[in-house]
Amino acid sequence: MTFAAQILTLYPEMFPGPLGISLAGRALADGRWSCSPIQIRDFAEDKHKSVDDTPAGGGAGMVLRADVLARAVDHALEAQPNAPLLAMTPRGRPLSQTRVRDLAAGPGVSILCGRFEGFDQRLFDARPIEEVSIGDYVLSGGEIGAFALLDACIRLLPGVMGAASSGEEESFEDGLLEYPHYTRPQIWEGRTIPEVLRSGDHAKIAAWRKAKAEEITRSRRPDLWERHRGVPDRSPSGARRETKED
Amino acid sequence: MTFAAQILTLYPEMFPGPLGISLAGRALADGRWSCSPIQIRDFAEDKHKSVDDTPAGGGAGMVLRADVLARAVDHALEAQPNAPLLAMTPRGRPLSQTRVRDLAAGPGVSILCGRFEGFDQRLFDARPIEEVSIGDYVLSGGEIGAFALLDACIRLLPGVMGAASSGEEESFEDGLLEYPHYTRPQIWEGRTIPEVLRSGDHAKIAAWRKAKAEEITRSRRPDLWERHRGVPDRSPSGARRETKED
Repeated sequence: MTFAAQILTLYPEMFPGPLGISLAGRALADGRWSCSPIQIRDFAEDKHKSVDDTPAGGGAGMVLRADVLARAVDHALEAQPNAPLLAMTPRGRPLSQTRVRDLAAGPGVSILCGRFEGFDQRLFDARPIEEVSIGDYVLSGGEIGAFALLDACIRLLPGVMGAASSGEEESFEDGLLEYPHYTRPQIWEGRTIPEVLRSGDHAKIAAWRKAKAEEITRSRRPDLWERHRGVPDRSPSGARRETKED
Repeated sequence: MTFAAQILTLYPEMFPGPLGISLAGRALADGRWSCSPIQIRDFAEDKHKSVDDTPAGGGAGMVLRADVLARAVDHALEAQPNAPLLAMTPRGRPLSQTRVRDLAAGPGVSILCGRFEGFDQRLFDARPIEEVSIGDYVLSGGEIGAFALLDACIRLLPGVMGAASSGEEESFEDGLLEYPHYTRPQIWEGRTIPEVLRSGDHAKIAAWRKAKAEEITRSRRPDLWERHRGVPDRSPSGARRETKED
């Protein structure tokens, strides 16, 4: 099955871009996902092909028009009625690895990328759009968020990662940050690989890694740690979720 | 002054990529920032140019070698001694708009992009590297995180955004999500622009926008809202910060 990605953007030439290289690029060439950028401007109806206008009530920048965007969104919904339609915006729900896993298990995604000051609010009032944020910072548009969301999904598609287990022992999969890694050389600048990792004792190694993952999560991300421990949650994505992993 | 970006990566051909288009692309052409991708593999010393090896203690995937990466990092630190050196990793400190503003005000950044299972931990023990995460999900490499971080910085560089005020009234700048936007047409699918925005009363408009920003932050992001209100913080980036904006 091919995971189908439709991207609504003013910059279709950005795609697949970095997703055409390396892991995602090989997966694209192998037909494990498909990439269909759609030019939002094609849905403008005036002779200037305008997609934006000045904000009602004043202020800097331009706002993407609900009427033009709705036509683009309707086109995407018709082409892929079973795929969730997401809009990348800092006002959205924070993306989590749990949501990524859900999306990667589905038929694909349609992603709406904004630019300028944002979208006319009525678009979200009138269409089934899930607002998603990749983090608490502001980007010049939704395209880089779309790269992040797609890359996170693509690597989880069947057959994309070499070793089947590679997606399971990593940050967030058990609600923790990942344990530290080591590899050759054995001694580097006087620093040695921890003795336990050279012991060959798999149970001891697993216990050490778990303890390290817990230790680093507790010290770096008390918010994740509290969720992992089942403490009531005040974190970005936790407020509307039940599972501790998210 | 040019904001200088050095990117240490196994895929230098990904850069500037999407950052060569639109706002960031014009800023690059105007010399407001510079983009220097550096191939990590050039710092390998064996005849196979190997940069990774199997994880000590077993497990799937490959780990980036401390010795090779340290040579690449030392090269970057020598070329740009005053720029912070960041590594993109889900184990890092969550990127915030406050950190973005700090970085954008500086001389530039050097960014280390991982691939595979991650870096040998000794690299972080031995070199001054700030681990940064763009969100709680796992990507196939650090490059997309580097795009996000750079794009967020570039748009804040002097002269890059058209209207000077455009960076100040947006999500996170006052610790809140942004208020909703509206633009023409006045009526769309029976939905009208809120009356207050057509009133011409600037004080009333400002008050409405503030109330809306507070309302949406409270309902969508109780974690941000609590920080905004000065309630003790359990959120990702707040644990190590003092300011409520972050």
